Amino acid sequence: MQTTPGTTDTASPDSAAYAPTDRTIPTRSADRAAYDRETVHAILDEAYVCHLGFVRDGAPVVLPTLYGRVGDRLYVHGSTGSRPLRMARATSEEQDPGLQVCLTVTHVDGLVLARSAFHHSINYRSVVIHGTAHQVTDPEEKRAALDALVDHVVPGRSADSRPANTKELAATAVLSLDLNEVSAKARTGGPNDDPEDMDLPHWAGVVPLRKGHDALIPSEDLAPDIKVPDYLVEL
Amino acid sequence: MQTTPGTTDTASPDSAAYAPTDRTIPTRSADRAAYDRETVHAILDEAYVCHLGFVRDGAPVVLPTLYGRVGDRLYVHGSTGSRPLRMARATSEEQDPGLQVCLTVTHVDGLVLARSAFHHSINYRSVVIHGTAHQVTDPEEKRAALDALVDHVVPGRSADSRPANTKELAATAVLSLDLNEVSAKARTGGPNDDPEDMDLPHWAGVVPLRKGHDALIPSEDLAPDIKVPDYLVEL
Repeated sequence: MQTTPGTTDTASPDSAAYAPTDRTIPTRSADRAAYDRETVHAILDEAYVCHLGFVRDGAPVVLPTLYGRVGDRLYVHGSTGSRPLRMARATSEEQDPGLQVCLTVTHVDGLVLARSAFHHSINYRSVVIHGTAHQVTDPEEKRAALDALVDHVVPGRSADSRPANTKELAATAVLSLDLNEVSAKARTGGPNDDPEDMDLPHWAGVVPLRKGHDALIPSEDLAPDIKVPDYLVEL
Repeated sequence: MQTTPGTTDTASPDSAAYAPTDRTIPTRSADRAAYDRETVHAILDEAYVCHLGFVRDGAPVVLPTLYGRVGDRLYVHGSTGSRPLRMARATSEEQDPGLQVCLTVTHVDGLVLARSAFHHSINYRSVVIHGTAHQVTDPEEKRAALDALVDHVVPGRSADSRPANTKELAATAVLSLDLNEVSAKARTGGPNDDPEDMDLPHWAGVVPLRKGHDALIPSEDLAPDIKVPDYLVEL
């Protein structure tokens, strides 16, 4: 079903960029694709949730989940009983077969309203990662991964919360996914109407979607002497 | 790899709800799952982008894409040359084999900060749909699907834009996915700290994420006499 040959460039032409592969070169709108680490990491670090895809009994499954990044490695976590985490464990004598995944992160930045229905679009930034996820068995890496997961939600938070205890660590499984076969894609700007449509009487432009957060909601049982920490004020 | 038996209930116990199946009964946090149409449709109608998962050469692929809903059917669209749309077409003598997909929609509503790292979470609402997507070949259904896709972005917009012409219709492929094997899942409320952690000196609560949109950005070339339409004012 592939129309292009296999991996087109395994040697990265630039150490600051991920090498494109057959799976990460888009069939459409190739001009929207990017492979540099700075762009990829910025998109990953700004989002809260990824969509993790894997194959179960031959069918695709896509689940939303939190993640964290440490350098060129992503981590997802879950109960040791959850499906993808069980599937990533060795189910036979085979050592750590891993789990083939596709992990995708998307920001929706704006709604693009064109004069023609056909040119309606959205402004977005996305990252798609293909690879094999492996269970993290090293205790130190597992602790660092869990810190990264908490700090991904709110930078600085892991140092201001009780770390996982032995029981919690045992109940939590962590998967790692190396950033290797990765691409970013983005659309920005206004609508691209056809020249012959420019005089149509329809409003055209962009509806920018709101970012950021509203006022914090403290827990009802929060002790009154606990102030909002700086890392939340700066959020 | 399944720990529960196959489909547990194919007869819907309530016409207003989707019947749970093995794939839509979560292994974890089953109390967060819902199957009623009202909940499912509300989550679907509020989001802009879904994550469409399919299997290509045995590996999962997850792509963000726009969608529209008409009753119990979702539509996604794309260029006739895009991968999932090509894959859904008959590739042999077999008539319309369809494409096995998992379509997931997620809202991230808030960041949940607990006193313990372990109980950090997010407030979210998600819908996961399993099924087989088929190419829409009926011209009337295709037109209605494209209207639904535009109206999903901004309700009322399809009537206030130039409809697709013959050339645009020919360049666009539409896939349909029936809502049948569907579940919603949601987390709301504050952190669920353990009783022994309640006196820890860490701020706890929820960071609600902002919804809505910022000020409209008209196209630079928009004629000055074109006012902002009511459906955008009400957005």
